[in-house]
Amino acid sequence: MRILPFIALSFILPIAIGQESKPAPTVTSGRDAAVEPAYDSQGRLLPPFKYREWIYLSSGIDMSYNPKPAMDGMSMFDNVFVNPAAYRSFLETGTWPDKTMLVLESRGAQGPSSINKKGRSQSSELMGFEVHVRDEAKTPGTWAFYEFDNDKPAEQIPTTAVCYSCHEAHAAVATTFVQFYPTLLPIAKEKKTLSAAYLKEAESDPKPQSGH
Amino acid sequence: MRILPFIALSFILPIAIGQESKPAPTVTSGRDAAVEPAYDSQGRLLPPFKYREWIYLSSGIDMSYNPKPAMDGMSMFDNVFVNPAAYRSFLETGTWPDKTMLVLESRGAQGPSSINKKGRSQSSELMGFEVHVRDEAKTPGTWAFYEFDNDKPAEQIPTTAVCYSCHEAHAAVATTFVQFYPTLLPIAKEKKTLSAAYLKEAESDPKPQSGH
Repeated sequence: MRILPFIALSFILPIAIGQESKPAPTVTSGRDAAVEPAYDSQGRLLPPFKYREWIYLSSGIDMSYNPKPAMDGMSMFDNVFVNPAAYRSFLETGTWPDKTMLVLESRGAQGPSSINKKGRSQSSELMGFEVHVRDEAKTPGTWAFYEFDNDKPAEQIPTTAVCYSCHEAHAAVATTFVQFYPTLLPIAKEKKTLSAAYLKEAESDPKPQSGH
Repeated sequence: MRILPFIALSFILPIAIGQESKPAPTVTSGRDAAVEPAYDSQGRLLPPFKYREWIYLSSGIDMSYNPKPAMDGMSMFDNVFVNPAAYRSFLETGTWPDKTMLVLESRGAQGPSSINKKGRSQSSELMGFEVHVRDEAKTPGTWAFYEFDNDKPAEQIPTTAVCYSCHEAHAAVATTFVQFYPTLLPIAKEKKTLSAAYLKEAESDPKPQSGH
């Protein structure tokens, strides 16, 4: 792993991206709807390998906190998943329960291949995954960030990292970027769970440029 | 609905896209793992509104069968979902069972908003969804395509439509574009379920341009 010299719209800032392709998460046949964060004896989060079977929230491409182009022209997709129990709770309440895990997967964006002659599709190149966890038993009163290096358990990112203050300052719901999850944002609006900071920012935000 | 003058990488060719934003599919709290295609009394497929709770396979942006730019500069994401029972079966066999439903959702791609200063995220603008169904009781020996206009039941697209012959000629597995589903393609390779047509095409396909 090395720290790339650009800032991507990752849970974690600055983002660390593996330079080699990582093994794809194990895809198994079970649907682990009751999944909860699990740790090793040293308190490190175990990688939730089955996240591709959780609920999909959204994808972006080349999103970044920084308007400058990436220095090496790298293009990638981000996919976000949440554990099913947390999703069900959000639909009812507009916010996240204890034991919520949001996974951000980064994946290579490839140009034309097969019958696709334009645009980009997702490649088998898994470039990393990060997890944002609410676990009151482990980190009372705060959500914790973890970034996985291949299939190793991950230490919590120290709470002094800028990811914490940035999510606190800009996230639509409970330090999570619900503003980018198109099926959940209307629920948060309806349930009035949008953060004051987000609402203030949204007032002055220019209307997103759509369709271009 | 009107037919747009460009050809997007849709299940259906040419793609028809609603000009107005459609209502988001109803997101409910149940996980309908045992979901199967259902029809009205006239044999029209009922919209599977809960597809966002199915298994996510991949996304693309501005994918097209046609290398020319879209005439109006429209940008959109495609997200693909499959019903959980079919997914589980694929993991074991490398191909799709009876009652498989693949949903292709088209959604607006928006530029910078909130803290995203670059790249694109998915908007709340649902631009349509299409379903590719294997249902031996309804259409023996062939997969059927349906495109939904808002929440109305859909007639099967006639089998003379080019979507059928194109999928037959280019799809990696059983007339489905598994070549674009990064976690399933390795399984199809391992289970040796890739179509002869796809394998031949892949041999002469230039390596996809990645990262640019």
